[in-house]
Amino acid sequence: MSAVRSVAILGSTGSIGRQALDVIARAPDRFSVAALAGGSNTDLLAAQVAGFRPRYAASAATDPDLASAMETARCLALPPEEIAVQPDVDIVLVATAGAAGLLPTLAALRAGKPVAIANKEVLVMAGHLVREAAEVGGGELRPVDSEHSAIWQCLWGEEGHAIRRILLTASGGAFRDLTREQLASVTPEQALRHPTWNMGRKITVDSATLMNKGMETIEAIWLFDVPMSAVEVVLHRESIVHSLVEFSDGSVKAQLGVPDMRLPIQLALSYPERMPEPPMPLLDLASVGTLHFTRPDLERFPCLRLAMEAGARGGTAPAVMAAADEVAVERFLRGEIGFLDIPALIEAVLERHDPLPSPSLEDVLAADAEARRLAAAAAPGVHA
Amino acid sequence: MSAVRSVAILGSTGSIGRQALDVIARAPDRFSVAALAGGSNTDLLAAQVAGFRPRYAASAATDPDLASAMETARCLALPPEEIAVQPDVDIVLVATAGAAGLLPTLAALRAGKPVAIANKEVLVMAGHLVREAAEVGGGELRPVDSEHSAIWQCLWGEEGHAIRRILLTASGGAFRDLTREQLASVTPEQALRHPTWNMGRKITVDSATLMNKGMETIEAIWLFDVPMSAVEVVLHRESIVHSLVEFSDGSVKAQLGVPDMRLPIQLALSYPERMPEPPMPLLDLASVGTLHFTRPDLERFPCLRLAMEAGARGGTAPAVMAAADEVAVERFLRGEIGFLDIPALIEAVLERHDPLPSPSLEDVLAADAEARRLAAAAAPGVHA
Repeated sequence: MSAVRSVAILGSTGSIGRQALDVIARAPDRFSVAALAGGSNTDLLAAQVAGFRPRYAASAATDPDLASAMETARCLALPPEEIAVQPDVDIVLVATAGAAGLLPTLAALRAGKPVAIANKEVLVMAGHLVREAAEVGGGELRPVDSEHSAIWQCLWGEEGHAIRRILLTASGGAFRDLTREQLASVTPEQALRHPTWNMGRKITVDSATLMNKGMETIEAIWLFDVPMSAVEVVLHRESIVHSLVEFSDGSVKAQLGVPDMRLPIQLALSYPERMPEPPMPLLDLASVGTLHFTRPDLERFPCLRLAMEAGARGGTAPAVMAAADEVAVERFLRGEIGFLDIPALIEAVLERHDPLPSPSLEDVLAADAEARRLAAAAAPGVHA
Repeated sequence: MSAVRSVAILGSTGSIGRQALDVIARAPDRFSVAALAGGSNTDLLAAQVAGFRPRYAASAATDPDLASAMETARCLALPPEEIAVQPDVDIVLVATAGAAGLLPTLAALRAGKPVAIANKEVLVMAGHLVREAAEVGGGELRPVDSEHSAIWQCLWGEEGHAIRRILLTASGGAFRDLTREQLASVTPEQALRHPTWNMGRKITVDSATLMNKGMETIEAIWLFDVPMSAVEVVLHRESIVHSLVEFSDGSVKAQLGVPDMRLPIQLALSYPERMPEPPMPLLDLASVGTLHFTRPDLERFPCLRLAMEAGARGGTAPAVMAAADEVAVERFLRGEIGFLDIPALIEAVLERHDPLPSPSLEDVLAADAEARRLAAAAAPGVHA
């Protein structure tokens, strides 16, 4: 990289945002922070603003300490979708959770900027609109999920070669070895203990239900332009093989590494270069010793099936599924419903939804709102 | 591929040559046979000439049936190094064993032709001359070994990215689980039973001693322009992961597949395209279930250490090592020496050799001849 890249981090107080700042802080000759946007954790955002002195900042909440930090740093308050299109922003990292990432992603792509996308919901809700924005504006999506980063890397130099299959690996989540009976009674506390990755609460529960992996199958079809029939999930408890791609001739490529989100974050920022040093310990395959691969059990983890079906159906179906999941997970974490009620509730909402093909952004947001309403109102125990 | 590629197969009666003909026979719209060259198996060569009707053929032996088949096919007799430079030859597959592949490889590269290289000795003996010929003539080497094909594929799209480490996988050969005491008394018959790959006798014994893997480390330094210190060997008994590359940022890429040499052969011929169909069954990772990786034991398998040391030393050392190995394996197969005498004999020959840096072809051939003489004369039991 000849010049220092100026990065806007939307969702800077979350897990991905904080790790992105770590990556940037290690390479001040390559990256600078153009903008920071956070949610309700204004204390942390104020500290980040004071430390990185970005030109722009946005917060979902007002806070005098944050205002003071922004003033000291001579930092301009702008909404995220305006930050995303500033001429002095070279790349936008969308690391917000949920629907909040949608407008900035569309705006950045339409403005021709690269978007490092760590937000699943954006592609799940509106993959067709995101792709359209990239085509119209010339912006490009760079995956930040470890799985999609792996697939992306496997596809370098394979332009024009047909993809036979994408194999998304899944750690299996906190409950991979439990029976359906045991799953019925797991608590929110148990669900929040992920075996490999240290992530936010929503995504950790989504990992335990395999909904997270289901959403990743939908992300994959939009990021890599493949049909859902070309996407498979394989359980791989060690989380060393981050995903694989099988080409027309049967050759399979994989990307591996010690699980650490800083690698895919760094790569999305440094692309097309690789940084000269690893952000994590190097992989010692002989010390790992054994890698396991098994098929996922769709009986115990129906969320994976629901997501792949919604992805294959398309239109508003994935947005409805994602909205219903968000509400269902909140209700599970509040103790209102059981773990197995999560897929049952999502399925009930999907059954009541008649999906629109090629929906507009307004259609998507309306379907999202309606799904949330239905999911909030559904009685617990619907799976019985 | 727009036009049909005309392939010269040097070593057409061997294992790789026969599989190459299988690949070509399946894709007559993409490949044709320009030339066939064989050794002493003139019956098979005659049958291949009759079936594929090449324009040129070469044989190490004379045989009336072969002469008759060549006459019927209107096929011209030429030595391999002349075949390799014919204008109507698009690509040369060097699948001969031993030093016989050297002159045709150099000739083809100097003539600017792509060379699919399945012959280890060529690069082990004279890697610097091969690279020089490619640079002078503009020809390019395409690996056919499954390991080097894997590395090659992992490097596509990674131009300009620094390689931190190449990890060559090794099945471990027929004796991977034997103790040193057990190794001392293994028979040629036992050595010829390879657990994964069905290959020729010499290479199967070289697999059992790990000399084959050692030679592959030397091939790797010439094919991929890395120092020996960047090459590691990891034992992987399933032979599913064909090799791996670790880049500067710690990201590791691997190529996987059901073990079948037709994939790397096909890819070397079809490059830069991938064929639309696999030549082998597809990989089902969940059915394979478990992949194992362990460190090689250099105490039990000193040939790996000897080869890596010779490769690091360079000059005539690798040629001397390869020549001594060829004689030692022959003597083992004849029952003259024991299995552990193979590395002992090679080490004894290497110790008596004072390697020349940057040797000419004549220097290499002289060192080869001297090493063979020494290896043939050495007393058995030198390791005691």
